Amino acid sequence: MRRLHHQPLSPFCRKIRLVLAEKRIEAVLAEETPWTRDLDFLRLNPAGQTPVFVDDDGTVVADSAAIFEYLEETRPERPLLPRSPAERAEARRLVAWFDDKMHREVTANLLEERVMKKLRGGGHPDSARIRAGLRNLTIHLEYIGWLAEKRKWLAGDELTVADFAAAAHLSCLDYIGDVNWDHSLPAREWYARVKSRPAFRPLLSDLMSGFPPPPHYADLDF
Amino acid sequence: MRRLHHQPLSPFCRKIRLVLAEKRIEAVLAEETPWTRDLDFLRLNPAGQTPVFVDDDGTVVADSAAIFEYLEETRPERPLLPRSPAERAEARRLVAWFDDKMHREVTANLLEERVMKKLRGGGHPDSARIRAGLRNLTIHLEYIGWLAEKRKWLAGDELTVADFAAAAHLSCLDYIGDVNWDHSLPAREWYARVKSRPAFRPLLSDLMSGFPPPPHYADLDF
Repeated sequence: MRRLHHQPLSPFCRKIRLVLAEKRIEAVLAEETPWTRDLDFLRLNPAGQTPVFVDDDGTVVADSAAIFEYLEETRPERPLLPRSPAERAEARRLVAWFDDKMHREVTANLLEERVMKKLRGGGHPDSARIRAGLRNLTIHLEYIGWLAEKRKWLAGDELTVADFAAAAHLSCLDYIGDVNWDHSLPAREWYARVKSRPAFRPLLSDLMSGFPPPPHYADLDF
Repeated sequence: MRRLHHQPLSPFCRKIRLVLAEKRIEAVLAEETPWTRDLDFLRLNPAGQTPVFVDDDGTVVADSAAIFEYLEETRPERPLLPRSPAERAEARRLVAWFDDKMHREVTANLLEERVMKKLRGGGHPDSARIRAGLRNLTIHLEYIGWLAEKRKWLAGDELTVADFAAAAHLSCLDYIGDVNWDHSLPAREWYARVKSRPAFRPLLSDLMSGFPPPPHYADLDF
């Protein structure tokens, strides 16, 4: 059986879970704790990072961008990239925007300080990093809102992996109560559309013990 | 005419320059200084980062992974990804290894402290970051050597973008004299093979004023 090695609050893993669900690819979820340096997991991925996808035939694919391209190549039905190279480039640019820039400026700061330090048992949250993350989040919400006003979906006329990348980050941040949805109405309306897709449901019912989400988290009409 | 907006010592830009040259795609180089927040450049790429590729027809592609996939899709001759999805995934995993992990652990530390701070006029080098970068570099050299011993090229039997990603980082580090080539003979031999390709020549003759490379930098028999 196909397997996805993941962490529940990783935006990279959530992006792949959304891609798998949208493409109707079933996979068993194996939860990892990369900070324990488990040897079996390091054998799968020497980088020691989630997600790692193991296909039916035993093919192991590590890194969320590599997993996405692999799924798109091996399961081209229900594509999550547009047809033309220029539109595909725009979708991939936005994935890099969210997974590199938004991750570095927002998600990494807030998840590390609010969740990961507690999980690993490693010290007090750094309030300067939390403030920086929250401040940068407003800029990213505005950019998402600006894209959502100009286009049907973030990268253009079709739903693409860029929508899932952005929604994966926001769903992690929403889980820890850090998204002020009043800040951008177009961003909120776009997120409501992504959130109401069947592919999103498993994320919304996935609860981490010790970290209860705010009441609106699983609400489709938030 | 096609254009690549770049920075001379950026490993992401060097990777794309190698890809362009290997695919025999000519492009004018436009040097950028992203820290000056030039508005024309921000209009091309709101992330304010190099590389940005502008194609003949005006298509603008930002982010080095998106540019690479775009070039591979629009110029499939002289491919830099293997044929099968599993092998393509391995090449992309390694690109992520070098561009995410090696960059964060090694290249970003050393380039920022030794070059970028001087270029931007922003303070003294942080010797702790330099030491960490140098220490981590030995581990990455060993990994490259281990791959080069097991395989003909880093991702398998064929030269791929993974070789160019790794060589782009090492060429930046070699320019600032930080690579101890005695540390891994297989890594050195693999790098000599990549370095002797015609695609590599423009990188070796590209000198930055104020930052002379060590004598062996452009030597094919280093």
